[in-house]
Amino acid sequence: MIRASTFLRLNLRTRGSIFAPMTEQVQALIGKEFPCLDKGFVRLVDVMGDDAAIVQAARVSYGEGTKKVLEDRGLIRYLLRHAHTTPFEMVEFKFHVKLPIFVARQWIRHRTANVNEYSGRYSEMKDEFYVPASDQVRAQSSTNKQGRAEDSFAPSEAERIRTMMSTTQDSLYSEYQELLGTNLAREIARINLPVSNYTEWYWKIDLHNLFHFLRLRIDAHAQYEIRVYGEAMAEIVKAVVPAAWEAFEDYLLHARRFSRKELIALRSMLATVTPEDSALEAAGLKGREAQEFLAKLEELSQL
Amino acid sequence: MIRASTFLRLNLRTRGSIFAPMTEQVQALIGKEFPCLDKGFVRLVDVMGDDAAIVQAARVSYGEGTKKVLEDRGLIRYLLRHAHTTPFEMVEFKFHVKLPIFVARQWIRHRTANVNEYSGRYSEMKDEFYVPASDQVRAQSSTNKQGRAEDSFAPSEAERIRTMMSTTQDSLYSEYQELLGTNLAREIARINLPVSNYTEWYWKIDLHNLFHFLRLRIDAHAQYEIRVYGEAMAEIVKAVVPAAWEAFEDYLLHARRFSRKELIALRSMLATVTPEDSALEAAGLKGREAQEFLAKLEELSQL
Amino acid sequence: MIRASTFLRLNLRTRGSIFAPMTEQVQALIGKEFPCLDKGFVRLVDVMGDDAAIVQAARVSYGEGTKKVLEDRGLIRYLLRHAHTTPFEMVEFKFHVKLPIFVARQWIRHRTANVNEYSGRYSEMKDEFYVPASDQVRAQSSTNKQGRAEDSFAPSEAERIRTMMSTTQDSLYSEYQELLGTNLAREIARINLPVSNYTEWYWKIDLHNLFHFLRLRIDAHAQYEIRVYGEAMAEIVKAVVPAAWEAFEDYLLHARRFSRKELIALRSMLATVTPEDSALEAAGLKGREAQEFLAKLEELSQL
Amino acid sequence: MIRASTFLRLNLRTRGSIFAPMTEQVQALIGKEFPCLDKGFVRLVDVMGDDAAIVQAARVSYGEGTKKVLEDRGLIRYLLRHAHTTPFEMVEFKFHVKLPIFVARQWIRHRTANVNEYSGRYSEMKDEFYVPASDQVRAQSSTNKQGRAEDSFAPSEAERIRTMMSTTQDSLYSEYQELLGTNLAREIARINLPVSNYTEWYWKIDLHNLFHFLRLRIDAHAQYEIRVYGEAMAEIVKAVVPAAWEAFEDYLLHARRFSRKELIALRSMLATVTPEDSALEAAGLKGREAQEFLAKLEELSQL
Repeated sequence: MIRASTFLRLNLRTRGSIFAPMTEQVQALIGKEFPCLDKGFVRLVDVMGDDAAIVQAARVSYGEGTKKVLEDRGLIRYLLRHAHTTPFEMVEFKFHVKLPIFVARQWIRHRTANVNEYSGRYSEMKDEFYVPASDQVRAQSSTNKQGRAEDSFAPSEAERIRTMMSTTQDSLYSEYQELLGTNLAREIARINLPVSNYTEWYWKIDLHNLFHFLRLRIDAHAQYEIRVYGEAMAEIVKAVVPAAWEAFEDYLLHARRFSRKELIALRSMLATVTPEDSALEAAGLKGREAQEFLAKLEELSQL
Repeated sequence: MIRASTFLRLNLRTRGSIFAPMTEQVQALIGKEFPCLDKGFVRLVDVMGDDAAIVQAARVSYGEGTKKVLEDRGLIRYLLRHAHTTPFEMVEFKFHVKLPIFVARQWIRHRTANVNEYSGRYSEMKDEFYVPASDQVRAQSSTNKQGRAEDSFAPSEAERIRTMMSTTQDSLYSEYQELLGTNLAREIARINLPVSNYTEWYWKIDLHNLFHFLRLRIDAHAQYEIRVYGEAMAEIVKAVVPAAWEAFEDYLLHARRFSRKELIALRSMLATVTPEDSALEAAGLKGREAQEFLAKLEELSQL
Repeated sequence: MIRASTFLRLNLRTRGSIFAPMTEQVQALIGKEFPCLDKGFVRLVDVMGDDAAIVQAARVSYGEGTKKVLEDRGLIRYLLRHAHTTPFEMVEFKFHVKLPIFVARQWIRHRTANVNEYSGRYSEMKDEFYVPASDQVRAQSSTNKQGRAEDSFAPSEAERIRTMMSTTQDSLYSEYQELLGTNLAREIARINLPVSNYTEWYWKIDLHNLFHFLRLRIDAHAQYEIRVYGEAMAEIVKAVVPAAWEAFEDYLLHARRFSRKELIALRSMLATVTPEDSALEAAGLKGREAQEFLAKLEELSQL
Repeated sequence: MIRASTFLRLNLRTRGSIFAPMTEQVQALIGKEFPCLDKGFVRLVDVMGDDAAIVQAARVSYGEGTKKVLEDRGLIRYLLRHAHTTPFEMVEFKFHVKLPIFVARQWIRHRTANVNEYSGRYSEMKDEFYVPASDQVRAQSSTNKQGRAEDSFAPSEAERIRTMMSTTQDSLYSEYQELLGTNLAREIARINLPVSNYTEWYWKIDLHNLFHFLRLRIDAHAQYEIRVYGEAMAEIVKAVVPAAWEAFEDYLLHARRFSRKELIALRSMLATVTPEDSALEAAGLKGREAQEFLAKLEELSQL
C-alpha cells in the first residue's frame, strides 16, 4: 500500500508548492479603475490562479508522465490548441463593473458566471446616463442589420443628437425624482428610466468562459459599447495569465474556421503549391505546430 | 449474456410505451394566450413530457424493484418530498413571453434556461410600454426596502401618475422615431427607451428549474409585475403535470422551513403536546407521510 | 394601445402555427433501439422541436423584417455559420442509453444535460459487462498518449485477452452475488465491480449542447467505445433535424480552424493564387457563402 | 457629470479596500492533507474570498443605504435566511481530492463545478483500492432501500469480507499489469479495474453550490464513503468563512422544512400554546429572527 503522503511529497517536489501567492504585479492591478465609455469602468476585485494553476490542473489529468516533456508555456498552448478547456476553468476572475443597462442586457446572456447587481428596487438609481461620444454617433450600417456604419455623422449633427439625448436623460431623472417625492415605490418609479442609465455589478467567471465572452465581445461584430468593456478586461487578463492570453490570441481570437466547402476551395487553390519550410518558419510555425499544420493540409486531400 | 432487447420488452410491457403523445387537453393549451399586465402575455409553445415522464425517469434509477410498490402519484410526491429532483428535469417547457424590459431583467437572472430575445439592434422596438394599473400605483413599503405598500394611492393621484408615465413614454417613442429618421443606427437610437418598453422572448426550461423560478417569483416578496407572469405559467404547469404541481404546492410552495433555533423554540412549545392521530388525519397526513412527520418531531428532541 | 392578439394573429398567419406536431417519421424513430457495442444501446425517448423550431426562435430575435429574405434552411445555415447558437438550444432530445461505466464516466463530463442513472445502491447491478470485439483489441498508440493503435492484435492473442476479460467479469459477478448473499449492503457489495459493467440512464440535452458533445465524441480522438454511441445519436439527430445536421457537418464537424500562424503560412502559400470562380463553384460555394470566403481570404492580408 | 472616481473614493473609504489578502490562518490550511477513508484525502488548493467578500457583493446590490444598519455577520445571516444566494457565489474553493471511483461517480452529479480528473487513458491507474474498515462492513438496511444497517457484521465475518475484497483487488491489478505488459492500449486494459480503484481530481466550486453539495452529502442518507469527504471539506469551509458556515448550519443544515399538511398538523398541536418570550430567548431567537418566527406561526392560521 502506497501512502498518499508519498505521492504528495513527490508532487510537492516536482510541481513546487500547490499554492502560488499573487504576484506584486497582479496585486497592483487589483482595484485599479479602467475607465469605459463616458462614466463606466471595469476593475479587478480578485483573482484565483495564474498560468501555473492551469498547468497544475492539467497535470492531474496527465499524471506524472508528461511533465518533463512539455514546459508550462508549451503545455498551455497545447491545451488550448486541442480544446482541452477544463484546466482553464481552474482560474477565476472577479470584476466590479459600472455599465449602462443596455450593455448589461447583452452581457448577462453569458450564463456561466456569478452576478450581484445594484438593485433599483432596493436603492435609488443614480443620475448617470450614457451619451455616446461624437465619433460614435453613426448611421445604421448598410451591410450589417445589427450594426452601425464606419463613418460618423457630421459633428454638428452628432452634437445635436448628443444634446437631445442628454436633455431627455435629465428630464427623465427629474421625473424619477418627482415620483420618488410622491413616495411612489422605487420599484415602480424607475420604470421610465432609460436603458442608458448606468448600473453596477460584481461579475465572477472562470477563464475558459471569460475567453468565450471576450472572443464574442471584442469581435468587430459586437456592439461598440460592450467591446470597450471587453477590451478593458482583455488588458487585465493579459497581465494576469500572459501565456494563456497569448495562446488565446493565436488559437482562438485571431484564428479562423474554414467550412467543409471552403476547405475544398482551398484545396483546389493549393493544388500546385508546396508548403515551403521557409514559409512555415516565417509564419512562426515550428516543431509540433508545423507538423500539425502539414497534417491539416494533408487532410484536405481526403475531403 | 442477456439480450438488451429482452430487457426492453420487459420494459415496454411493464411500463407501457416509453413515449406518451401529448393529450388533447395539453394540445389545446398550446398557443393559447394568457394576458399579463396591460400588454404582455405568456403562451406555451411546446412541452416535452408529463407526470408519466417523471416516473419513467425515476424508475431507471430504481430499476424494476419498486414499481409495484408505489403508484405514479405517490412516487412523484415521494421524489419531491425527498428532494430527488433529477426526474423533474426530464420535463421541458417552452414559452413565448411578451414582457417589459425591467421584468425581463429580473427573469434573466435564472440562468438554467434557454432564451431567444427580440433584438433592438436588429429590429425596431415596438411602441408598447407598461403603465401600472391604478391599484398598483402604491407607496414605498415602510417595512420592506424592496417592495410597495399594501394600499394604493388615491385614484386621482394614481391617475395623474399614470398619465405622466404614459405621456413620457409617448414622447420617448417619438424621439426614438425621430432619431431613426436621421438614420441613426438602431443600436444607438434605442438607448433612451425606458425599461417599461415591452420586449419578447422564447424561454425554455426544465420543470425542476421552473419550480425553482415559480417558488421565488410567485412569492409575495417578488415584484408584482413578474408575479403576474409566474401565476400565468403556474396555471399552465398545473394543467400539464397535475401530480407534480400538487406535490410542488404541498412540499415546496406552501411548505415552510424552520431554522435550528426555531426548531428548539418549537420543541419547548410542543413539550407537553402529544400529536393526536386525529390531528394528523385532519391535516391529511397518513401512512408514510404521517410517519415522516412523527419522525421529524422525534428528531426535535435530539437538537 | 395595440392588442397583443393582433400581433399574434399576424404571427400565426405569417409563421404558421407555433406548434408542429411530431412527424410520423420521427414518431417511428422513438423507442427504436440502436445497438451499441456488445450489449448496449441508444434509443430516442422523446424530442421537442425540429428544424422549424430553430427558425421560429431565431425569428423572435430578428422580428418580422427578415423572414422573407431568408428561407428556413438558409437561415439555419446562416445561424450556425455565424455562431448564433441560442436558437439551437430550443430543440431538446431525450435518450435512454445502456453503456459501460467507463463510457458513462467520460459522457457525464458534459454538464449541460439532465441525467437519471440506474442506482447500484438501490438495485442490484446486472450481469452485463463489456468485452471489446476482437478487432478493437489493439496496442497502445505510439503517437497518441491517450489512444490505441490502428492495427489489431493477432486474432489468437485478441481471443486470449477477450477470454481473460470475460472470465474475470464472471468471477467478479459471482463474488458480488456471494457478498449480496451474506446480506452485505448493496452499496458496499458493488465496489469491486469493474468499470466494464453496464449501467443505464436517461439523458436529456438541447441541440446546441448535443452538437458540442457530438463534435468531441465522434471525433477520431475520442475513445472508440464512446464514439459508437455518438454515431448512433448522430443518426437519430440527422433524421430529426436534417437541415441543422447538414449545417453542423459543413460548419463545425468537417470544418477546420487555422491558427494565426497557420493563416500567415496560408497567406504566403496563396500569394500567387487567385481564387477562380470555377473553384468556388466546384466546392459548392456560392452567393453569400462565396462572398464570406473571399472576405476571409482578403482578411489574411491584414494579419 | 459625476466622475466615477468620486464614487470609487467613497467606496474605498466606506467599504475598506476591495481586496482582502488571505489571512495567515487560511494560508496555513492550504495544501494541508485531510485524510479520508483508507487511502484518500481532501486538501484545499486555493480559495478566493472570505466572509467579507460575501458582504462586499451584497452591498453592491443594496447600494450605500444599508451598510450602517446591518453588520457583516448579521447581513450574512440575513442573506442566507432569506435565500439571497448570489453573494455566496462570490467565494470560490479549489480542492485536490483523492477518492474511489464509485465516490467520484456520485460526486460528479453536482454539475455546477469545474473538474480536472486523472485520466486512465493517458496514464497508468495506480495500485490503490478502497477496502471498507471493519465497522463499515454492514448489512443492507431493512428500512432504507439505498443504505446500510446501523450494526456492523461480526468482526470475523467483516474481516473475511475485507480479505476477499483486498485479494480480488490485488488480482485485478495484476491482470491489469499483465495486459499492459502485452502493450494493450491503456484505455482498454483498464476496463476491468473496479470502482473501488482510487482516482484524483481538482475540483473547484463556489460557496453557494458547495453548501448545496454539503447539505446533501453530509446528510445521514448519503453513502458513508462520500460523507467522509463532505465532512473534511466542511472543516475547511468552516475555517475559511466562519460566519457563513454558522448561518449555513442554522438555516440550512440543521433546519427542517414542514410541508403544508405538516404545518396544518402543527397548527392544531399548537392551538392552545402561546409562544413565551422565555422559550424564544432560550432558543436563541431575538430581534428580527424572533419576529420572523412569530410571523411564521401567525401565518399558520391562514393556511
